[in-house]
Amino acid sequence: MNEISDSLKQRFATIADLDAASAVLSWDQQTHMPEGGLAARAEQLSTLSRISHDMLVSEETGALLEETGNTDPTSVEGAFLRVARREYERAARLPSRLVGELSRTRSLAQGAWEKARTNSDWELFAPHLERMVALQREAAEHLGYEEHPYDALLDAYEPGMRKSQLDELFARLREELVPIVKKLPREATGEEPFRGNFDEEKQEEFSTRVVTDFGYDWSRGRQDRVTHPFCTSLGGPADVRITTRFDPTWFSYHFFATLHEAGHALYEQGVDPAYTRTPLAGGASLGMHESQSRLWENIVGRSREFWNHYQPLFGKTFPQAAGASAEDLYRAANVAYPSEIRTEADELTYNLHILIRYEIETALLEGDLEVSGLPGVWNEKTKSYLGFTPRSDARGVLQDVHWAMGLIGYFPTYTLGNVLSAQIFEAAESAHPEIREQISEGRFETLLGWLRENIHRHGRRYEPRELIERATGRPMESGPYVSYLKRKYGEIYDL
Amino acid sequence: MNEISDSLKQRFATIADLDAASAVLSWDQQTHMPEGGLAARAEQLSTLSRISHDMLVSEETGALLEETGNTDPTSVEGAFLRVARREYERAARLPSRLVGELSRTRSLAQGAWEKARTNSDWELFAPHLERMVALQREAAEHLGYEEHPYDALLDAYEPGMRKSQLDELFARLREELVPIVKKLPREATGEEPFRGNFDEEKQEEFSTRVVTDFGYDWSRGRQDRVTHPFCTSLGGPADVRITTRFDPTWFSYHFFATLHEAGHALYEQGVDPAYTRTPLAGGASLGMHESQSRLWENIVGRSREFWNHYQPLFGKTFPQAAGASAEDLYRAANVAYPSEIRTEADELTYNLHILIRYEIETALLEGDLEVSGLPGVWNEKTKSYLGFTPRSDARGVLQDVHWAMGLIGYFPTYTLGNVLSAQIFEAAESAHPEIREQISEGRFETLLGWLRENIHRHGRRYEPRELIERATGRPMESGPYVSYLKRKYGEIYDL
Repeated sequence: MNEISDSLKQRFATIADLDAASAVLSWDQQTHMPEGGLAARAEQLSTLSRISHDMLVSEETGALLEETGNTDPTSVEGAFLRVARREYERAARLPSRLVGELSRTRSLAQGAWEKARTNSDWELFAPHLERMVALQREAAEHLGYEEHPYDALLDAYEPGMRKSQLDELFARLREELVPIVKKLPREATGEEPFRGNFDEEKQEEFSTRVVTDFGYDWSRGRQDRVTHPFCTSLGGPADVRITTRFDPTWFSYHFFATLHEAGHALYEQGVDPAYTRTPLAGGASLGMHESQSRLWENIVGRSREFWNHYQPLFGKTFPQAAGASAEDLYRAANVAYPSEIRTEADELTYNLHILIRYEIETALLEGDLEVSGLPGVWNEKTKSYLGFTPRSDARGVLQDVHWAMGLIGYFPTYTLGNVLSAQIFEAAESAHPEIREQISEGRFETLLGWLRENIHRHGRRYEPRELIERATGRPMESGPYVSYLKRKYGEIYDL
Repeated sequence: MNEISDSLKQRFATIADLDAASAVLSWDQQTHMPEGGLAARAEQLSTLSRISHDMLVSEETGALLEETGNTDPTSVEGAFLRVARREYERAARLPSRLVGELSRTRSLAQGAWEKARTNSDWELFAPHLERMVALQREAAEHLGYEEHPYDALLDAYEPGMRKSQLDELFARLREELVPIVKKLPREATGEEPFRGNFDEEKQEEFSTRVVTDFGYDWSRGRQDRVTHPFCTSLGGPADVRITTRFDPTWFSYHFFATLHEAGHALYEQGVDPAYTRTPLAGGASLGMHESQSRLWENIVGRSREFWNHYQPLFGKTFPQAAGASAEDLYRAANVAYPSEIRTEADELTYNLHILIRYEIETALLEGDLEVSGLPGVWNEKTKSYLGFTPRSDARGVLQDVHWAMGLIGYFPTYTLGNVLSAQIFEAAESAHPEIREQISEGRFETLLGWLRENIHRHGRRYEPRELIERATGRPMESGPYVSYLKRKYGEIYDL
């Protein structure tokens, strides 16, 4: 068995520093940068990512990885090497010509997508998407795969996951959820307590209380206002920042976005500090990360126990809603109906939005679907799964930027997060049956402690598959999530 | 004549991007970073500066500079090459062993200085300063000089400036100012209008009005709160941020610091955008930079015309001071008396603080003064120039961090800034005699326009010496500054 050399550690530490610097620059761009700074910032970010990428794919890195030889795969050093090699190989396998073309196409496609969405004009975007799909297919061939080219792309976001597993998962969700969604009301009902006038400072005061109760450590983070909320780690677990948004007439818009980002942040703040500046820093996968944001946003923040506890504070903070009972707030938090826009969709219908995208992007990659036919297919699937036809392509097939950015294989991680959140919460509850009772007292330390111990602290130490088995005793399964949705929405909407 | 190759341009652009990224990380550290982020941030900054330094001193940079050959020294390309070579040579001449020792000594000396100042115990700091002076002497030998080793150090901050010129300048200032300062009152008198209760939001509202009137462009900047105010350029003239501080009982503490940083920012915002990401970006020297901050802070912001215009707004913003006349405010802005701490000193006595430091650091470098004897010499000089003995070493010889950081040759640039500010303002006024009248109307566009045209836009295109001659028609001279001080304080204090 060999040890990881200091040179190799130093190399990945340098890459981590460069990537953290990029994260600071991006955070600043989205939170505080004056408008004038945009062009210079783009150059700075491009320089940092070029240096980081060059350092990762350099012959020196390859040689250092090579000479390390075999390391006990179950040790921390073995995990370091597994992730380092994976990152190196994924980067080194793409010819630099292809990396350049992907970057150029991404930039053009994003511009075209913005225009296309504004004008609801598919034709403006179609040629760019066609080019992007061709490049992604080429990338998949370079990256390599055993079963399906989609696996090669998916692996970037969800290491080890296969399309064959997703096919099974989405088939189950389609079968279980489409019939329920069909029975939902066609529009929002019961959301009154969260609509009206909500002073922004009061909203922030309330959500800050909740997020602090969850266990978010403000001495290792902060919150700023942005257009599209995100969570970012700027120095391992020691500097994990969240961002949020406000709508002075709609409480949920700020509140659940904040819980969501806080969920991501609790994960990052809980990673073993020893992994900082190594490939083991951060979350195990996008799906695993999303499981934490969804768990705190939905399973905790949209639970009856949660609103039983926070109803008095909510009424005190927003006197106009003082008359709303805990049950009213619980129902307002769980309004569900088929809607056009994914990012505004509720917990129940959300997965069908992902299903549509998953079926389309796998078909695109297989060559079974022409880009020109995409709006038609999108609308048919929306009709069939959600029961309506989008009013326009802008509010349909053009609503997300992901494909323009080349993010094929990314959408499923949202649903993986949902599925995993229920399985993980079930395991935590089975270890500590008092968790639900504690939530109704505004206490979250047992839940957070279990997550820290079983998920957070491990960072990328284990493959997602291994991590979920270690944490829950079972491979990923959709059962707990489907039961959770059926139980909750069955009761609320009498389905 | 040769042209600058794209490879050379690209290399310096990359270095500029890395340095800009460091500036963003430092800005964030001082404004928004949660306390937990400190250790990781130090690693990130160290990595960025190491990569930038390695790129600057690399053989490849040397070869690119070499092969460019001679370029018309009066052209922009010639200036690019002059500054690029200067930066390369200064960095490349220092052996990496010495760079490492300097960095280690700096870090230890800063820690020791903090402890020494807290305990007012010179002995804790003395051995570190001794080591630092020895290293700086060694650095001067490597860097090379024609007349005096001090020139080699000074050149880092004030390209082309010589100790022999400073000796002459400081001799004149000593001769002219010491007798005047002796006649000043021994304590602050007439500052009442700026003492009391000053709501922070109101302070910010007032200073923001003034800085906006000056011409600071908020679409290319912003202001944040820090412990030690600074101005930083994060992407050429397109992102120039200022920072400030507040004391709710003392108006000047915030106000003049803000005008000062805004003066620096007006310079940076005025540099030709074509110089962004080249060695010609930024100010010509520290002294030239300081001339702009002092011009706006002192010559404009402490003028009778200024307060004639802003008195009504001041009274409206701070009703408790509504009774103070414009003359009262002018006098409050120009309170002068010999005080212990340089950073709190007024415009008139400030230069004597610098004089003390200049005489001491040149003597140290020459070996004419032992570090152990420094507190005694400090106190004697303070007594002789300012007329009192500091109450403690903490408030005397230990008050500044500069020497601990290895900044020998830096202090004089503060006085150079003062001297240049008067010469530059005189030239602007002689070109546009209406400037003073305009200030009393709250109009600054003629002044700013002249500065933009004659100083700001040139960035580092010219050596400071050439820039001042082009702008004012004469080499640097202390006459205008001495007259300005004598006229102003002579009248106020009837000296």
